[in-house]
Amino acid sequence: MMGRRAAIVAVGSELLTLTKVDTNSLAITDVLNALGIEVAAKTVVGDAPDELAACIRMAVERHALVVVTGGLGPTEDDLTRDVVAAVLERPLQEDPALVEQIRERFTVRGLAMPESNRRQAQVPAGGRVIPNTRGSAPGLWLSHDTGVVILLPGPPSEMRPMLEGPVREWLAEHGSPAHLMRRVLRVAGRTESGVDARVHPLYTPWAHEMPAVTTTILASGGVIELHLSTVTSDAEAGRSLLDGKVTALQQVLGGDVVSVDGRSLSEVVGDLLRATGATVTAAESCTGGLLTALLTEVPGSSDYVDRSAVVYSNGAKRDWLGVPSDLIESHGAVSGPVARAMATGALTHSSASVAVAVTGIAGPGGGTSAKPVGTVWFAVADRTSSQVHALCCRFAGDRAGVRRFAALTALDLLRRHLTGVPLTVDWRVPEAPQA
Amino acid sequence: MMGRRAAIVAVGSELLTLTKVDTNSLAITDVLNALGIEVAAKTVVGDAPDELAACIRMAVERHALVVVTGGLGPTEDDLTRDVVAAVLERPLQEDPALVEQIRERFTVRGLAMPESNRRQAQVPAGGRVIPNTRGSAPGLWLSHDTGVVILLPGPPSEMRPMLEGPVREWLAEHGSPAHLMRRVLRVAGRTESGVDARVHPLYTPWAHEMPAVTTTILASGGVIELHLSTVTSDAEAGRSLLDGKVTALQQVLGGDVVSVDGRSLSEVVGDLLRATGATVTAAESCTGGLLTALLTEVPGSSDYVDRSAVVYSNGAKRDWLGVPSDLIESHGAVSGPVARAMATGALTHSSASVAVAVTGIAGPGGGTSAKPVGTVWFAVADRTSSQVHALCCRFAGDRAGVRRFAALTALDLLRRHLTGVPLTVDWRVPEAPQA
Repeated sequence: MMGRRAAIVAVGSELLTLTKVDTNSLAITDVLNALGIEVAAKTVVGDAPDELAACIRMAVERHALVVVTGGLGPTEDDLTRDVVAAVLERPLQEDPALVEQIRERFTVRGLAMPESNRRQAQVPAGGRVIPNTRGSAPGLWLSHDTGVVILLPGPPSEMRPMLEGPVREWLAEHGSPAHLMRRVLRVAGRTESGVDARVHPLYTPWAHEMPAVTTTILASGGVIELHLSTVTSDAEAGRSLLDGKVTALQQVLGGDVVSVDGRSLSEVVGDLLRATGATVTAAESCTGGLLTALLTEVPGSSDYVDRSAVVYSNGAKRDWLGVPSDLIESHGAVSGPVARAMATGALTHSSASVAVAVTGIAGPGGGTSAKPVGTVWFAVADRTSSQVHALCCRFAGDRAGVRRFAALTALDLLRRHLTGVPLTVDWRVPEAPQA
Repeated sequence: MMGRRAAIVAVGSELLTLTKVDTNSLAITDVLNALGIEVAAKTVVGDAPDELAACIRMAVERHALVVVTGGLGPTEDDLTRDVVAAVLERPLQEDPALVEQIRERFTVRGLAMPESNRRQAQVPAGGRVIPNTRGSAPGLWLSHDTGVVILLPGPPSEMRPMLEGPVREWLAEHGSPAHLMRRVLRVAGRTESGVDARVHPLYTPWAHEMPAVTTTILASGGVIELHLSTVTSDAEAGRSLLDGKVTALQQVLGGDVVSVDGRSLSEVVGDLLRATGATVTAAESCTGGLLTALLTEVPGSSDYVDRSAVVYSNGAKRDWLGVPSDLIESHGAVSGPVARAMATGALTHSSASVAVAVTGIAGPGGGTSAKPVGTVWFAVADRTSSQVHALCCRFAGDRAGVRRFAALTALDLLRRHLTGVPLTVDWRVPEAPQA
């Protein structure tokens, strides 16, 4: 039976600098909490063997569950395996099957396995290997007299599938019958405080009901997330409690709700397009390909994405999309008429059912008093209805922020168009002519 | 004399959840590093007295400097003062002057001081008070036999002025005039172990020289980073020491070195294009816009990016870039001839000096035994030389990983082309015809 409290140790000198921050511990916390396991402490420690050994020893002495990430690479500064083996007093043994798996990862890329990678096949006696499908460093599950130590690789792309797959599953098998249930609502087109103002009266009493439901609001890169959680002994009761809360929030938030089942905005848009057999094309200026990159991050998106044009210069807008030069001259490249012409031009130069255009000023240069940095025009054109809607938004933030917000807003406008929800968002500039 | 290594402890159960993240430790790291003090470990611990005591005890035993933030408030779950006093075996004494200062903070707002705030005037014997100009919780500087423990409040708005004012000043008085100097080399086209195999013999002895230079190797999203650091009393000497090490690494790594001055691959490619007045266009299939998004993430990239085509379908490759249908039928869309035709077509349909094409299988579906998921063909075409180079790579990982690696590799191939470095990368598939 696993205890209810755990310690997390993130290993890597780079995580003690200003340039890299440990994010793995958040993902691990999420999975542990969902299993009713609380995190009692988390530590970041550098690649110094004595320091690492002291941290691991203290964690193992105090907590039945210790999760360690990082330091499983092939180089000499990757010490986690050796240090944990020493603390638990387990000799390291090379696992021949593991050597072959690691070798195979190199072979498929036409490479010989460097000798240093053999270190990654060393397993402390009694250890259970957690397969790594994305990299060469296997994870390890080490049961000992008073608990379990889990070792996971540092790169999040490798760590996460292991955490969310076998680690979650094995922990659940060891776990107690308390369930921490969670739901996430994603909301687009609204500011964090705008969302909170609308749902605050609703969720405040939930914290005092029995069982209590905790609500947290997070802004996650242009999309607002409402996290609901509750701890119950009966998973089914917890699920239906949260279902009721989700429905209540949906009634207040209406068409601004993107999903209540964890799907991203890209996935929701993809499902809407696929459901009606529609296809989409994008005409991107300031987003420089980010909008199409978001659309195509979903597996199978070739079902509804055929082509997109990144038309950065005025010449490109003219040559590739037929935007008239005099339109650009009289209104400027960042304007309602040009956004509309980009969207209709994208329909003309493709067979897509719907086109989305984005043209704006990402900064840091290029702003004027009438069109400051962050000003972005959008247009959505529909082949069936022959309608084109355009609107102007203004985003705060640096170049990367403006570009990311603009790409997400374009996706959200597409979602609103496909679901018949009004194309109004909190960052719309009302005084701009809504052409 | 202050030691060169410190531990940071952040106190507060909320910092162990998903919604609040400790940021104080970054501000503290910044100030310590500037004084030549390295952070050896940082821990986040909840408001549990035994857990907190164990963390503080270990930190004090191991490090001459321990900085603790949080848990100095007036309520019963604010335990830091009591726990540290117990660990250092110092009785707590009420400081009458401090009581009056705290009372005054309430008086000026027309309030009576709650009795609970008296706790904040408790000082461990021998402690020096660090004034708090923004709140009621004073900080404490506690010298002991083997070092110093500094207690600071948790709210960043209170903590930062204390850290950047008296704490920095007092540390500088105690410290040696040491400087922590850092340099970062970025390397592309090579695996982490491939880079390490080449530079390991070089940097290993540096750790034992005086002053020692520490080397850390990191894989950061397809680019390998070599971090060098050293602590010296003379900043100029430290800088020139690291300059020498950087030069030595450059000699071994040659054209695989992207930058030694912190510039990203996108910035380096942009600078190369701008230096020669060249412009670039991309023809993207599997990367779906990511390559152009990377190119345009740099401010001012409109100087060298004019347009790019995201040609996801075969029809788009034919219509927009003139890739012959029979070429796609006979070789497949993911092939050397199609990549070459995409690159030359992109030159034909733009005025760019150089074109980069990417076509591959990002997965999870679409793979075959001959062309498994992760197979990506690249081509670089140059208008001046009329030359086209193509090569095939194979990437491990999921859809997002393959797409990101493919976009970065395309950027790196462009960099290699522009600098005349061979277009060979570790993930090249040697048996594929290098058309």
